[in-house]
Amino acid sequence: MVKQTYQFSTASVDYYFNGSMEQLSAIADTNSTVLITDENVFAAHTAKFNGWKTIVMKAGEAHKIQSTVDDVIRQLIELGADRKSTVVGVGGGVVTDMVGYIAAVYMRGIACGFIPTTILAMVDASIGGKNGIDVGVYKNMVGIIRQPSFLLYDVSLLESLPLKEWENGFAEVIKHAAIKDAAMFDELEQHSIAYYQDNKEALQQLIERNCLIKTKVVQEDEFEKADRKLLNLGHTLGHAIENKYELMHGHAVTIGMVAAAKISEEINNFSSAEKQRLTKLIEQYGLTSSFAFDKAEAFETLKKDKKKAQDVMQYVVLNKIGEAKVMNIPLVQLKELIENL
Amino acid sequence: MVKQTYQFSTASVDYYFNGSMEQLSAIADTNSTVLITDENVFAAHTAKFNGWKTIVMKAGEAHKIQSTVDDVIRQLIELGADRKSTVVGVGGGVVTDMVGYIAAVYMRGIACGFIPTTILAMVDASIGGKNGIDVGVYKNMVGIIRQPSFLLYDVSLLESLPLKEWENGFAEVIKHAAIKDAAMFDELEQHSIAYYQDNKEALQQLIERNCLIKTKVVQEDEFEKADRKLLNLGHTLGHAIENKYELMHGHAVTIGMVAAAKISEEINNFSSAEKQRLTKLIEQYGLTSSFAFDKAEAFETLKKDKKKAQDVMQYVVLNKIGEAKVMNIPLVQLKELIENL
Repeated sequence: MVKQTYQFSTASVDYYFNGSMEQLSAIADTNSTVLITDENVFAAHTAKFNGWKTIVMKAGEAHKIQSTVDDVIRQLIELGADRKSTVVGVGGGVVTDMVGYIAAVYMRGIACGFIPTTILAMVDASIGGKNGIDVGVYKNMVGIIRQPSFLLYDVSLLESLPLKEWENGFAEVIKHAAIKDAAMFDELEQHSIAYYQDNKEALQQLIERNCLIKTKVVQEDEFEKADRKLLNLGHTLGHAIENKYELMHGHAVTIGMVAAAKISEEINNFSSAEKQRLTKLIEQYGLTSSFAFDKAEAFETLKKDKKKAQDVMQYVVLNKIGEAKVMNIPLVQLKELIENL
Repeated sequence: MVKQTYQFSTASVDYYFNGSMEQLSAIADTNSTVLITDENVFAAHTAKFNGWKTIVMKAGEAHKIQSTVDDVIRQLIELGADRKSTVVGVGGGVVTDMVGYIAAVYMRGIACGFIPTTILAMVDASIGGKNGIDVGVYKNMVGIIRQPSFLLYDVSLLESLPLKEWENGFAEVIKHAAIKDAAMFDELEQHSIAYYQDNKEALQQLIERNCLIKTKVVQEDEFEKADRKLLNLGHTLGHAIENKYELMHGHAVTIGMVAAAKISEEINNFSSAEKQRLTKLIEQYGLTSSFAFDKAEAFETLKKDKKKAQDVMQYVVLNKIGEAKVMNIPLVQLKELIENL
């Protein structure tokens, strides 16, 4: 287990790479800690929760809502959790998003840590302190930005992860490459999910590299005034269709990334050849590059996105592979761009 | 209208004293601002909401719960409120507590201001950034500490305030005097609620003095590691009985203050004569000094208080009038002290 500490504006976060969940007791006190997980993770790794107070939530994005938060809070009260308690979210992005939010508001904020159990949560959801829940079709409409105390990485937890969840996580890896790391994009083009599943060392390195890309972006712009917005590549449109069509997050994001690449070609001189490379890489990792959706309806949902300010949407576009920027696109223009996708 | 700006750790707050609600448009943009109030305040001051987008909540502590928050959030989405929007809570402590919380979590935090309409909200609830909602019998179990952008004081709003709400607010004024300001305690002993109702200048000064007492305590200890805890005088026991017996907050607090005075006499050499002065002042302002409650049950609720850490309660006791401190009282001892009240 290798500890690295990163400083954010209001807190420092300890990252434990190459760790194992068995080492949690070295980080968190068993008496005052409550683990929070979902049914699937608990079923796959029951023995690892032995000796810990544990709350098990229903699994899936459909339960990433306030009523689940209410249930967990009632259970924390019953367990006697107080201001000195720590909660640890063990699971994918839905779990870490919810546990981060619960920790932020329970008794006006208690300590929390995450043990991500999916690629998506490892390289993206658990990093950066964004948490939240959905309201109707609006993703992450309610939440806070607040850093966890620690992140514990145990890649052995990925052994039970279905292939579709590997694909789901690689959407964010490809996104990181597209906005920040052309060399990683090249590396990804040479490999496949099977390669990373078979090469634990390569996987560890890929995860750490992605953690650091995201961490660096967040450190420089924790409250999303500037560069952090780039992490939203593919997410504005992705979020607008994800819940409606019950898409996995990664697929919604890659559909959104290809759309963003087309829009970038249209209004930002992004080259057609690089758009092809991005589309091909997305397909190479089992992800969706095109999908028929109701464009008028998606635009109506998208207008409610958090990144809208009055009549303009802050939309992430690509300059080239490895470099992106935010453009303020008037809603009237964006409507047309989406209709013409 | 006199503007004073106070700096807190992560934000500065503008206080507009001697203001009027009509001047709100000089502070907040009518297009991007949503006022949130309750049925009672809206009925009493309907004309003042003309020209503003307004959300009206049900009135009263019983509605200071998550389902009300959920309703307001749905209405904010319908109104198209975005990250650049401001919400302004117009009302008593229930309204400002809830609006502060909603603003903190809506789209991961939007700007908010308060126009307090009760003595309690003016001198206490609207200041310091604590917000929250109740969970069952547990008061403010869920919430955040986050400063508003501004506070606008309009004492003409108090003209519609029933006498019982004046009394309710003076509980916190007496508390401020008891923990921090012996001279103000003397002044209060010489007057009555009727005096402050008839002397607008004396009222303005009293409100400003109390705002500054609370502001100074919070500035020095925003996240309640030390001195801010003193503001909890009377609140630990008060909260444990308030919802159960449907007491007004002020009465719950004064019952709690007299209990704290007795405990202080028992374990902190607080004088019997000063205990009598405090009891007399509480009664002089129409508040409750003694009340028969189920002590065993109250202790069980109190054990779930946020100020408990493992087997010890951080309890505020008086040294003398105008000076208080926090004592760590083991739960076993506290149980006995409460049984013997």
